[in-house]
Amino acid sequence: MIDFDQLFARDLPVPAARSRGWPRYNFTGGHNDPEIVPVEGLIASAERVLRRDGRSLAAYSQGGNPLGYAGLRAFLADKLASKRGIETSADDILITSGSLQGLDLVNQVLLEPGDTVIMEQLTYSGAIERARRRGVKVVGVPLDEDGMRTDLLAAALERLRTGGVRPKYIYTIPTIQNPTGTVLSLERRQELLRLSAAHGVPIFEDECYADLLWEGDWPTAIRGLAGGAAVIHIGSFSKTLAPALRLGYVSAPWTVMSRLLACKNDGGTPALEQMVVADYFGAHFDDHVGRLKAGLRHKLEALTGALEEQFGSAAEFRPPRGGIFLWVTLPDQVDTAALAGPALEAGIAFNPGPDWSVDPVAARHSLRLCFGHPRPAEIQAGIERLAEVCHRETGIPERSANVARDQPLPSR
Amino acid sequence: MIDFDQLFARDLPVPAARSRGWPRYNFTGGHNDPEIVPVEGLIASAERVLRRDGRSLAAYSQGGNPLGYAGLRAFLADKLASKRGIETSADDILITSGSLQGLDLVNQVLLEPGDTVIMEQLTYSGAIERARRRGVKVVGVPLDEDGMRTDLLAAALERLRTGGVRPKYIYTIPTIQNPTGTVLSLERRQELLRLSAAHGVPIFEDECYADLLWEGDWPTAIRGLAGGAAVIHIGSFSKTLAPALRLGYVSAPWTVMSRLLACKNDGGTPALEQMVVADYFGAHFDDHVGRLKAGLRHKLEALTGALEEQFGSAAEFRPPRGGIFLWVTLPDQVDTAALAGPALEAGIAFNPGPDWSVDPVAARHSLRLCFGHPRPAEIQAGIERLAEVCHRETGIPERSANVARDQPLPSR
Repeated sequence: MIDFDQLFARDLPVPAARSRGWPRYNFTGGHNDPEIVPVEGLIASAERVLRRDGRSLAAYSQGGNPLGYAGLRAFLADKLASKRGIETSADDILITSGSLQGLDLVNQVLLEPGDTVIMEQLTYSGAIERARRRGVKVVGVPLDEDGMRTDLLAAALERLRTGGVRPKYIYTIPTIQNPTGTVLSLERRQELLRLSAAHGVPIFEDECYADLLWEGDWPTAIRGLAGGAAVIHIGSFSKTLAPALRLGYVSAPWTVMSRLLACKNDGGTPALEQMVVADYFGAHFDDHVGRLKAGLRHKLEALTGALEEQFGSAAEFRPPRGGIFLWVTLPDQVDTAALAGPALEAGIAFNPGPDWSVDPVAARHSLRLCFGHPRPAEIQAGIERLAEVCHRETGIPERSANVARDQPLPSR
Repeated sequence: MIDFDQLFARDLPVPAARSRGWPRYNFTGGHNDPEIVPVEGLIASAERVLRRDGRSLAAYSQGGNPLGYAGLRAFLADKLASKRGIETSADDILITSGSLQGLDLVNQVLLEPGDTVIMEQLTYSGAIERARRRGVKVVGVPLDEDGMRTDLLAAALERLRTGGVRPKYIYTIPTIQNPTGTVLSLERRQELLRLSAAHGVPIFEDECYADLLWEGDWPTAIRGLAGGAAVIHIGSFSKTLAPALRLGYVSAPWTVMSRLLACKNDGGTPALEQMVVADYFGAHFDDHVGRLKAGLRHKLEALTGALEEQFGSAAEFRPPRGGIFLWVTLPDQVDTAALAGPALEAGIAFNPGPDWSVDPVAARHSLRLCFGHPRPAEIQAGIERLAEVCHRETGIPERSANVARDQPLPSR
């Protein structure tokens, strides 16, 4: 018998456990609204594209450009121009297996152990973790209600320059920031570009959520602004359609793209999903996203209502301007990483704040609640139960629904 | 403006060029037969699975097991048991984006720079290249008509042990070997297992092509033999259905699987493809593969016929026992890597032998011709034209279709 433990590479992640199944109240991850998956539309698109182009599946990359299915790249070229202000040719867009693969490819092409990158202080856990796995130092820049504080970014860049460090990129989620839900102001986008040019540090713009802005001004993507030609921009169909489809994209200068493409040695992004999404969104993008946003906004109201009712002033949050998650901060007594276990025992899953922070300690009282997947009634019930577990474990919240927590709650 | 050239990581692959499109006569890669893509069957399956499970796309991994879509894992557990002799639970099968992702994950989990692995002397270029990219030394073991020479494997293992080297794995494509088309005999499979146990070196079995054996005895997979429980086994739907779907799988002991799964941080294998393939193959695997094999065998005959006609005794080959490619050796005057450029100018693409060999110099007169994609008439015309280019560049073949090559050919 082979003893594999003697053979594994060093520094692997801890082994995966057997799957535990879906929690009863799931507020984690970037799951989307199942009710709004356009099943009949996808069926019609699948039929149309398979009948027209199905035989092309017999060749790697459908016998076409390794950048991805031409129809989806053409759709994206239009969408990026009309909605994000990015003028690009379809031949400068790369389709990836989720924007996550875009993130991995950019990291592979730019990062080496010992490098430094800059991110928003609170940001996507995967971005922090993947950089650190490569032995890269992550410098966090605080946010306020307008996104990354560019004055503090300037100071950080200056400090790094003084220390002889040129960071490899400034990673930002400018439009519906993850996890804070903020939108970076136009002035700050321009300031970011100015700082990028002054310090020779590229901007790495992640726009996974940008299409889900509820309303109001829709700031141009940083890559679409004057001086934005060198920005590396990634996006996703996970949030506008469905994450299990695993489709994202990269828009970047060819200097970078030619490197990403050389490293993308996966035999091509799966084609059926590309074909179906190109066909469906070619006709229905605005309708679908409009419906999706209405549903998500309704769920956000259910979530903030439940939090107010169950946690009262103990839960601090700023409603996001779009998207699928809410960043909540609880009083100092609550350590959200410690709460996660007992909550899961009670069927409630959430993302503890430390995973979403460059400085885990600073976020130990916060958590991220994703409201995309559960129905409003499940959101209500889940938050009720979370308040119960949290009270039991930490004494917080002291009151729920205007009733002191040491009395039984009126309804369950 | 950002100068990215100052920022790229060291040792990246050379930048990709802009796509040149599909060559007129394409004998490269692992492309499949476009005529046999079951378009109407896939449409019916897509409709059925989307209507039944489409809403599950709203969650990562469809809210299920990160190993992959349960229906496809169940199909595979049956198929592996009935066709490959591997008894396994669906919960010990991982669905990957092509078997290529399986290969990458296994490498990630086992290999470090400075390690050694053993492969067949002639083998899949991607396996050689990916190991070498990780700074791993590849030791080749010669093949004969029954696959890897286990006597020479024993000698190589002994030599390495004497030198204090324990290889990380023995990679083999036992059933329809790539590129030689051989099938490893049962005795050698058992001997391989004996050597694996004696030296504590795992077997990494790649069965991408095994379903395409024309006829005759169908040797049990090495993982299915007594003592095979520690074997890591990968397979693919690229060759039985369509490579652009990007679906493969891993069957491995949980010790290894828990590591592969921890490293598979891609957000899940795309779900629509998994659902459609599970449904379609759940009802049609044998029919479809039977049709596919009949078509491929007909194409192989077209290829060997054209080679005999155009190259005569100058082209040496042993018809494969199944699959999609033929390994051809030309006389010493022909350097196939040098021939590839002029051939591509003339619209003919093939895989030069050195890419498919642990020792590139030893394979410099050989080439791999994949006959899966072109139609028989294109095969005929492509080989005619290849003979023309080859004669012009090297003087080989001296005669074609029984006519000396310095005379014009009778037909074109």
